[in-house]
Amino acid sequence: MHRTIAEKILQSKTDQKITGSGQIVRCKLSLVLANDITAPLAIKSFREMGANKVFDKDKVVFVCDHFTPNKDIDSAEQVSVTRSFAQEMGITHYYEGGNCGIEHALLPEEGLVGPWDLVIGADSHTCTYGGIGAFSTGMGSTDIAAGMVLGENWFKVPPSIKVDLHGKMGKYVQGKDVILKLIGTIGVSGALYKALEFGGSGVDKMSIESRLTIANMAIEAGAKAGLFPADKKTLKYTRKAGRSDEEIKPDKFAMYESEIDMEIKGMAPQVALPHLPENVKGVDEVGELEIHQAVIGSCTNGRIEDMRQAADILRGRKVDKHVRCIIIPATPRVWRDCVHEGLMQVFIDAGAIISPPTCGPCLGGHMGILAKGERAISTTNRNFRGRMGSLDSEVILSNPAVAAASAVTGRVTDPRSL
Amino acid sequence: MHRTIAEKILQSKTDQKITGSGQIVRCKLSLVLANDITAPLAIKSFREMGANKVFDKDKVVFVCDHFTPNKDIDSAEQVSVTRSFAQEMGITHYYEGGNCGIEHALLPEEGLVGPWDLVIGADSHTCTYGGIGAFSTGMGSTDIAAGMVLGENWFKVPPSIKVDLHGKMGKYVQGKDVILKLIGTIGVSGALYKALEFGGSGVDKMSIESRLTIANMAIEAGAKAGLFPADKKTLKYTRKAGRSDEEIKPDKFAMYESEIDMEIKGMAPQVALPHLPENVKGVDEVGELEIHQAVIGSCTNGRIEDMRQAADILRGRKVDKHVRCIIIPATPRVWRDCVHEGLMQVFIDAGAIISPPTCGPCLGGHMGILAKGERAISTTNRNFRGRMGSLDSEVILSNPAVAAASAVTGRVTDPRSL
Repeated sequence: MHRTIAEKILQSKTDQKITGSGQIVRCKLSLVLANDITAPLAIKSFREMGANKVFDKDKVVFVCDHFTPNKDIDSAEQVSVTRSFAQEMGITHYYEGGNCGIEHALLPEEGLVGPWDLVIGADSHTCTYGGIGAFSTGMGSTDIAAGMVLGENWFKVPPSIKVDLHGKMGKYVQGKDVILKLIGTIGVSGALYKALEFGGSGVDKMSIESRLTIANMAIEAGAKAGLFPADKKTLKYTRKAGRSDEEIKPDKFAMYESEIDMEIKGMAPQVALPHLPENVKGVDEVGELEIHQAVIGSCTNGRIEDMRQAADILRGRKVDKHVRCIIIPATPRVWRDCVHEGLMQVFIDAGAIISPPTCGPCLGGHMGILAKGERAISTTNRNFRGRMGSLDSEVILSNPAVAAASAVTGRVTDPRSL
Repeated sequence: MHRTIAEKILQSKTDQKITGSGQIVRCKLSLVLANDITAPLAIKSFREMGANKVFDKDKVVFVCDHFTPNKDIDSAEQVSVTRSFAQEMGITHYYEGGNCGIEHALLPEEGLVGPWDLVIGADSHTCTYGGIGAFSTGMGSTDIAAGMVLGENWFKVPPSIKVDLHGKMGKYVQGKDVILKLIGTIGVSGALYKALEFGGSGVDKMSIESRLTIANMAIEAGAKAGLFPADKKTLKYTRKAGRSDEEIKPDKFAMYESEIDMEIKGMAPQVALPHLPENVKGVDEVGELEIHQAVIGSCTNGRIEDMRQAADILRGRKVDKHVRCIIIPATPRVWRDCVHEGLMQVFIDAGAIISPPTCGPCLGGHMGILAKGERAISTTNRNFRGRMGSLDSEVILSNPAVAAASAVTGRVTDPRSL
């Protein structure tokens, strides 16, 4: 049988023979992840199951990134529960405080995920690691608890949609624009319980950061996973993180449910208008839209490439005085690189606010919540009604260059026009 | 009549002749201040008074510093109310977002306060500006509303306690230690409705930052104001902020209610143990006390001198892995100076978390709230039960060097012993 990337990874983790999509298989897990919101729930389930140890203390990871630095007593107590459990179980990879970053940016950096891995996480954007060739997906806290105990779980082998990318993206265009354009085309349910598998010449030319961004938002089309081949560029990236991985690519005659061709050369930066990630337009088509806040960060767009793109725009410019421009490097390493590369200087001189790594406003957590009547442009992944605060606020999704350009002018702005 | 500094300033702002303490006088205000917590209350009172304009749009200042970047919808709405009112009134000095810092660190930097000024603010630490020779004090939001309308308010002339400081402080000792030691001596009600007036050779040798820190915590001894003479050093500082001020000092035979002599040479760094700022000991006397969080910042100790002291300790060292070390430069300028002086690099390399300017955890607002059973060392000003989070958490007050040293070791540590 010729296999897709999803089928190849799942096959490598099970003794059952995979014959096609729809099949239920029991697979060994490479890693189980939870955060400060979901870990306490998973821990509760873990206790209810009568368990007293995790399957592998090196393969259960907790990252306290959502409401940290603790925004209130409740979030402090959630972290406290997670920390105590991590200590009790002798968890090796526990992240809180100075070593903590946004989970989906942090784990690839730390070398905890890579090609051929099968990862489950109690967070919907766990699919991010598909950018470096891992089959990774979000699950509920009960399934995570089972994974923590057993080191395995069941999966329904997903059908795959092949997305062939052609060409090289222009200036101020990146992975975010590709995935927005795709979601705009297939809709937020366009890949429900399927795998989106990316390929084509466009992938070869694409940075790992852009691939991670695209995989990250696969879930916004309903996908179970967003998968990229792991090529030499991937292995260079994961080797830097201390791993020794092998390449992965689909078999030549792998079976796809459907195929989509996307020309990414000459594509304009894209934005998703309120209140769905599928409400996508070219930034040059939206007309006059005033903004009050710009957020640059998140598991989608908080990596160093994103920071550099924002800095490219903000260098020598000033944030409009009616805009709060909140920049959130996703991990301590990205933060450090921003200092060392002089980006912090650019940001602070421009009048931006620089946050420690946190999911923060993306999910309406903290660090930039919107009041009634306010509109934000944001490099995050969801713009559902009320996602970043008041039910009467609005969020527009974009890439970091668009968000930075909009911060400068006070309205949604095409960075190519600055 | 020979006058204290408090009497001199109040006299300069009233037509009534001041004959001594206890007298009620009506005075013209130099500035009226409110923040994101108190401005909405003051604005409500302002409306109830039937007012429709402020007495002077250059002399009413709003600083949205407490729960910002907005921690939740409620705080976003409070900022929104304040912003709308500021726009309606044409307020010149409105601070929110990238131009915003902690009010009491920001206003001296911005040149909005200085010697001979009479300032009221809807925040108890408004007394900070006494460090540069202003009579400034906290009032409730209704009084602030009246001040916003009338540009004046009534004051009871306070009796003054003279505190004569002698000598020059040693390494890792600063204003924070002086004021803690004083509060430890006279107690949290030791200067109730009085002015603490500082003088002596110790003042001449003291930085403006240390003077501001001392004046800031005058309220923790119950004082209405904490006052320093404005000398050449003061004028150099306020000139840099764009002002042209005159010196102020007490008359030679001014009448004080009492006098206190303090030798500050050879003094150890001080800490205030839970749960009152008067529970003061030398840091070398406290024994083994584990900490879980270190907070370096606030209107008390978030200025550049404080950042340099913290960096002196953290340079080349690592924060203990069980400690969250949260560093909060108090204003955008301090933040920028930290970048330009290389302090950010020191902090991030040490494993600290760096926050944008905010009051944050000091008042249990956000950005580092404590869970049950946790203990913080903090450069803030109050350690009342539950101040930084859970009622079952503890806060120990210290200077930035002590907090940084404790972050490194994981227990309350004398920086001189590192």
